[in-house]
Amino acid sequence: MHFLPNFVPLFIKPLRVEKVTASIITIGDELLIGQTIDTNSAWMAQQLNGMGIWVQRRVAVGDIKEAILEALDEESASADIILITGGLGPTADDITKPTLLEYFGGTMVQHEPTLQRLMQLFESRGLPILQRNIDQALVPDSCTVLMNHHGLAPGMWFEKGGKVFVSMPGVPHEMKGIMTDHVLPRLQEQFDTKAVLHQTLLTSGMGESFVAEKLLAFEAQLPEHIKLAYLPSYGLLKLRLTAHGEDKVSTAAELKLRFQEMEALLKDIAVYDEDISMGEVLGRYLKTKGKTVGTAESCTGGYIAHSITAVAGSSAYYNGSVVTYSNAMKTKLLGVKEATLATYGAVSEETVREMAAGALKVLNTDYAIAVSGIMGPDGGTPEKPVGTVWIAAGSADNIVTVKYRLMYDRERNIQMTAIYAMNELRKLI
Amino acid sequence: MHFLPNFVPLFIKPLRVEKVTASIITIGDELLIGQTIDTNSAWMAQQLNGMGIWVQRRVAVGDIKEAILEALDEESASADIILITGGLGPTADDITKPTLLEYFGGTMVQHEPTLQRLMQLFESRGLPILQRNIDQALVPDSCTVLMNHHGLAPGMWFEKGGKVFVSMPGVPHEMKGIMTDHVLPRLQEQFDTKAVLHQTLLTSGMGESFVAEKLLAFEAQLPEHIKLAYLPSYGLLKLRLTAHGEDKVSTAAELKLRFQEMEALLKDIAVYDEDISMGEVLGRYLKTKGKTVGTAESCTGGYIAHSITAVAGSSAYYNGSVVTYSNAMKTKLLGVKEATLATYGAVSEETVREMAAGALKVLNTDYAIAVSGIMGPDGGTPEKPVGTVWIAAGSADNIVTVKYRLMYDRERNIQMTAIYAMNELRKLI
Repeated sequence: MHFLPNFVPLFIKPLRVEKVTASIITIGDELLIGQTIDTNSAWMAQQLNGMGIWVQRRVAVGDIKEAILEALDEESASADIILITGGLGPTADDITKPTLLEYFGGTMVQHEPTLQRLMQLFESRGLPILQRNIDQALVPDSCTVLMNHHGLAPGMWFEKGGKVFVSMPGVPHEMKGIMTDHVLPRLQEQFDTKAVLHQTLLTSGMGESFVAEKLLAFEAQLPEHIKLAYLPSYGLLKLRLTAHGEDKVSTAAELKLRFQEMEALLKDIAVYDEDISMGEVLGRYLKTKGKTVGTAESCTGGYIAHSITAVAGSSAYYNGSVVTYSNAMKTKLLGVKEATLATYGAVSEETVREMAAGALKVLNTDYAIAVSGIMGPDGGTPEKPVGTVWIAAGSADNIVTVKYRLMYDRERNIQMTAIYAMNELRKLI
Repeated sequence: MHFLPNFVPLFIKPLRVEKVTASIITIGDELLIGQTIDTNSAWMAQQLNGMGIWVQRRVAVGDIKEAILEALDEESASADIILITGGLGPTADDITKPTLLEYFGGTMVQHEPTLQRLMQLFESRGLPILQRNIDQALVPDSCTVLMNHHGLAPGMWFEKGGKVFVSMPGVPHEMKGIMTDHVLPRLQEQFDTKAVLHQTLLTSGMGESFVAEKLLAFEAQLPEHIKLAYLPSYGLLKLRLTAHGEDKVSTAAELKLRFQEMEALLKDIAVYDEDISMGEVLGRYLKTKGKTVGTAESCTGGYIAHSITAVAGSSAYYNGSVVTYSNAMKTKLLGVKEATLATYGAVSEETVREMAAGALKVLNTDYAIAVSGIMGPDGGTPEKPVGTVWIAAGSADNIVTVKYRLMYDRERNIQMTAIYAMNELRKLI
């Protein structure tokens, strides 16, 4: 007879999960000279992860036949699935498709549905059809064609040596369309994946190493199949728990318990229990309470307004904003007193307080956020160096103010100010 | 005796340029699950390219010893320089540094200057110093330490088998600091690089395949050492010419001639002859003419204001903006007539025209941009489907309006509207 210990041993059977693995190959010189930032890979990895497929490597190569062939060989040596993007546009150097033909064999044929779609599209726009567009409908007959409903170049699904290879255009919305319409459902059918689940806690206000100290015991007793990752993001620290398991339901239940345990340890700095933007966090708080917000921005120049309105449905809680870069506009549009500006300056507690009060009135909202600061690289003084920023947030009867000294470049200073300002208001709601 | 042909043969000697090559390895699970978008690699590639070093591959691997070792072997088999980022934070899984120690040999030692900087930093902030922070000052004695003046984890420069390996933290501003302070100057010293020069023409208003037709003859007669690349970007098409050569001055002169030739062929759609943001393009036009601008934004929710103010020094030509999400705010802040809104709706030529006129008055600027549209995913009607957007741009005596029908997701629709709107004003200046 077995004795059970008197605590519930969530991790009594560390599960050896056999992983289905994928590699992502992106093709294009523009990635190697740094003209394009690769946002596709992150999206693809998220989708694959969500269905239990582990992305083990990502490789970017140029528009060079040998480099593409080498990458196909290397990645398929270890991964089960190889996803390829890029190199299929009408002006691409005509390297990717012939290379795929060489690698997988077959002959080049016209894909009729793509050709028809292409001709209809050009006709409906009254544009002449060019040979280079017609050529986009050419595919090796060794592939299964994945119809592109969002552009012209079709996706191509190959199988070789028990591995799956998918080639897609690099334009983000075309790639996403082909992934959603074809690739993800087909992978789901073909691979018996285990559960891989993530949950992320957003925190703000404590450095990475101090959070790590707080979580020392928690992390030490995590079972092998649950991993904690620290993901510093400007203005936020994200803590991600990842659980691997045989079964989705029980793995989710286990992950939930562990997550709650972690959340309780960090309740003072916890911002939200989902990996969403701060604009979306603030929006959810406002929606829940049925309240509205407006912003009065100087140094962030509209970035807080953008962060809030980037969220679909934000018109339900957002009326508008006033961006006042000059002192004259602060007075004219927000009613900041000229005396306040003269005495304390535009970057001061007094000014942001009056900006917030002005915004509440002018924009007719329940809450307001106001910021004024020096984002750099120029404009600093010994007294108020670059990076100095004042934030005010609150409602008619309670406005709080806070000062930061940021140390980054202009772009990051703007982003961090926006995140801190939105978080300041969130705390009050 | 030789006869010279009667045109100047710019490319009579196609230069065989021996390339110095680099590979970039990024380490971290967060890249493989798609939680982080890799912006570091693009920046690094730009810097290396600028000094004539060709990035041939970029590889992302997880926090796994074997994966890191394999990547080091593979990349150093062909590249001269291997730049590594990530895996060095205080909570990193302690895999990168021991793996580097194993790969390059030596023993782990304390780096005194880093330790002192670290202790000073923690003291000045009144924070206790933790063992995990102290450990950040540990480095293999087989490396040259590259002091990190922007964070805690130092950079490490290794040499092995005639190849250079540099390990840096993944936090963007720390990596950039170490690259600028140490890596780029050292590479410049150590490698005799040839000239690799780029120039990019921004265009707007014509599809990729039609531009390609226009450039058919131009592209066909380009010498082998000058390459043309098409880089579609939402709302813009970028055309990049890259020239390789032995000598920087003559290569630059040749590139310039070719670029001017291309620009002349595309003068109707040319936006700018440098790869900068549309906000910066607009800013340069305004600065040159000594004029000011303001924006009245509905659907873009502050993104145009942000695009303009993201540029350092924008306060010279930018007064402010009004973001009016609700009809009431359009009337209250911009003086849009209630009758106009009732008759034509918020998304109409008449409304954006009144918004622009209102902005000119309220913000007291020479020029104004106004937009109103439906960015999605909801809010469309049969008459005005999602993606419908009206733009107005101009001055008191000349406001032009234009309508677009965009087909992307909310985020891209916002970005494209901003780019189209700023370009509309640019055409008028």
